[in-house]
Amino acid sequence: MLGCMTTAPPEPRPAARLRIVLADDIAIGPGKAELLEGVRDTGSIAAAGRRMKMSYKRAWMLIDTMNRCFATPLVATVRGGAGRGGATLTETGEAVLAAYRRMEARAEAAVQDELGALKALLAGRQETGRE
Amino acid sequence: MLGCMTTAPPEPRPAARLRIVLADDIAIGPGKAELLEGVRDTGSIAAAGRRMKMSYKRAWMLIDTMNRCFATPLVATVRGGAGRGGATLTETGEAVLAAYRRMEARAEAAVQDELGALKALLAGRQETGRE
Repeated sequence: MLGCMTTAPPEPRPAARLRIVLADDIAIGPGKAELLEGVRDTGSIAAAGRRMKMSYKRAWMLIDTMNRCFATPLVATVRGGAGRGGATLTETGEAVLAAYRRMEARAEAAVQDELGALKALLAGRQETGRE
Repeated sequence: MLGCMTTAPPEPRPAARLRIVLADDIAIGPGKAELLEGVRDTGSIAAAGRRMKMSYKRAWMLIDTMNRCFATPLVATVRGGAGRGGATLTETGEAVLAAYRRMEARAEAAVQDELGALKALLAGRQETGRE
């Protein structure tokens, strides 16, 4: 946590991480967006959580909070006869996820110029001709 | 943490919180920006930390990390003969803080339209005619 390399490693793309605070008790950031994508891709809250190394309990709680904060749920669960059933993104879930990704892309585009200037101030990061 | 009010409380302004990831080991977000502002306003790392209810140790560590990640320090400390001396923002510190605040403003402006659409999907938040 204290470290800061002084020689340039392979550089990750600078990123603007966006957290949208919709109200006191609900925010959407990279984590919740990735979790929604996980549900969409895997059809399961447990699998979506595992993909992010997140406990089932935590994944479930995050989704439960989102479901209760929006007028209609973002994730619908199908309870099987035994064990944990599947889950899918609802139409609202798809809309919220898509809106977040659009906002993220717009925010990133809006700060690109400043990002370059900030990076130039970092230690050990001489111009490499890369973007 | 689980709560989500279903009746509309006085609404805070929706906010886009921005976290700028400059490299693997250095990011600047609302917390570090507020800390830099605290140093500028109070002339003291301890006082800047207190203002955020942050321990002196944590405030010091965050600033030390920033100082070592940039080519020139963002915060300069003046060690007195006894106890903790004062601290000031350097020219680089002012530049980084100003760049972050500009990026934040640009990001927020870039997502305003989408924010309104997202808010309309929240539970218990009927149109009030307010922005």
